[in-house]
Amino acid sequence: MKKIHIIGLGLLGGSFGLGARLKFPELIITGTDSNPQNLKDALTLGIITEAKETPDKDTDLVILATPADTLGKILIDTLNQVGENTLVFDVGSTKSKLCAMMSDHPKRKQYLAAHPIAGTEYSGPKAAMADLLNRKVLIICELEKTDLHLKEKAYQLFDALNVKLRFMDPEEHDRHLAFVSHLSHISSFMLGETVLQKMADEKNIFDMAGSGFASTVRLAKSSPAMWAPIFTENKENILSALDGYISNLSAFRDKIANDDSKGLFEEMAEINKIRDILELGK
Amino acid sequence: MKKIHIIGLGLLGGSFGLGARLKFPELIITGTDSNPQNLKDALTLGIITEAKETPDKDTDLVILATPADTLGKILIDTLNQVGENTLVFDVGSTKSKLCAMMSDHPKRKQYLAAHPIAGTEYSGPKAAMADLLNRKVLIICELEKTDLHLKEKAYQLFDALNVKLRFMDPEEHDRHLAFVSHLSHISSFMLGETVLQKMADEKNIFDMAGSGFASTVRLAKSSPAMWAPIFTENKENILSALDGYISNLSAFRDKIANDDSKGLFEEMAEINKIRDILELGK
Repeated sequence: MKKIHIIGLGLLGGSFGLGARLKFPELIITGTDSNPQNLKDALTLGIITEAKETPDKDTDLVILATPADTLGKILIDTLNQVGENTLVFDVGSTKSKLCAMMSDHPKRKQYLAAHPIAGTEYSGPKAAMADLLNRKVLIICELEKTDLHLKEKAYQLFDALNVKLRFMDPEEHDRHLAFVSHLSHISSFMLGETVLQKMADEKNIFDMAGSGFASTVRLAKSSPAMWAPIFTENKENILSALDGYISNLSAFRDKIANDDSKGLFEEMAEINKIRDILELGK
Repeated sequence: MKKIHIIGLGLLGGSFGLGARLKFPELIITGTDSNPQNLKDALTLGIITEAKETPDKDTDLVILATPADTLGKILIDTLNQVGENTLVFDVGSTKSKLCAMMSDHPKRKQYLAAHPIAGTEYSGPKAAMADLLNRKVLIICELEKTDLHLKEKAYQLFDALNVKLRFMDPEEHDRHLAFVSHLSHISSFMLGETVLQKMADEKNIFDMAGSGFASTVRLAKSSPAMWAPIFTENKENILSALDGYISNLSAFRDKIANDDSKGLFEEMAEINKIRDILELGK
């Protein structure tokens, strides 16, 4: 592997660049970003070795790390630009639409649908970290549709970055992620909004916020440019998750209204089981 | 200060004990817990130096650290047991009911209404830490109703533990805490419940959970024995917070259903302001 190209030099694209440089010091890393400041920062930070609008024909790997709703067009354009020995993978948080769009594409075998479960509430090249991917799960969808030999190029990078590979179909991926990632972000944003609204009347409310609030509201600092497209791209699954969440909240609300201490206790004790399940996942 | 007594030897009561021992090695710390195992653990862990059902008459400070709905009765009983040079303070998460109940009590000046904003999702004496209170906010309500000289005993301990004191009235306290603490716990519990329900149909869903989910669901590991009483004790304020939260969630849901990308982006960008506010609070 001699040359990779990264489109989108934010937190995730930037972390792939920094990680790849660390593991393969000789690698040529070209890249681009629609935001000129990001491109400049990526060069300064050493995320890429050269700014380049489009990948060279002999690029081994192209990584697409732009917002979810832009990936379809960029993927098609990129496949038209690269040679036949290039593998293109995206790192988007939704997979069904992209995979469906690609199902009959003549260059389908040069595409790998990937999603690393890695990130922070920060965004942009300055938020990138060489070890962001270390020991994180990376999900691959429709593995069998990608060329066997080209796939090796991605595996070489994934192994070097020490990710844990998982495989599933795109619909399953989007359904699961709606619950264990997208819903968390919405609950956090709405928590932040509710408290900000209250703060309009009550001063210094944040003085009293402890680590519990900081933890649950952390994701409300996340990038709207990244998340708005995810919410619309994975609409059906997210609506199902949200409806379940709102319905649980309403039922819990009624238990509080009715002073149903026993019901509240029992419901929370049942939810406490998540302790063991989260431990197992470690 | 020679002698303190702690009723309720869990996370918070235990941390007061460990912290006090560290700062005042000569201190006699007696204490009790309705759970015999907790009492045993507290002795083993050095949280208390002696198990004692009721405080001695010459105890300087009594700390009440039991669930919110039990504090009223224990406070009255304790005030009847102690001498006139003892100060009693509670560390409960709700303050209005207690302060109202105490307003005409003949020993009101021996009581201090306190609430340290400190804790973790774990509970019991084994979760206690000597530095849990370090640099945490401790709210005092109705400061003026406590005897000037007795108050000094509490200040001596608070200063040694390095807490940051804040003062407000009990109604304001309960109103604020509903938003910046109690609501976070409910949103986290309900998130955990929603994902557990989904898991009944979908296996391995937690494999895909990243640090964002872990962060938002952390509080769902919290003790039901502590939180069920808080929710009912602070019912009116929590219902108001919850109703605002559910209404925000429903409006956000509709924006997703209507593919209102611009609206979602703008709403989240507005909520991002919480970044700066949270930074200010540091």
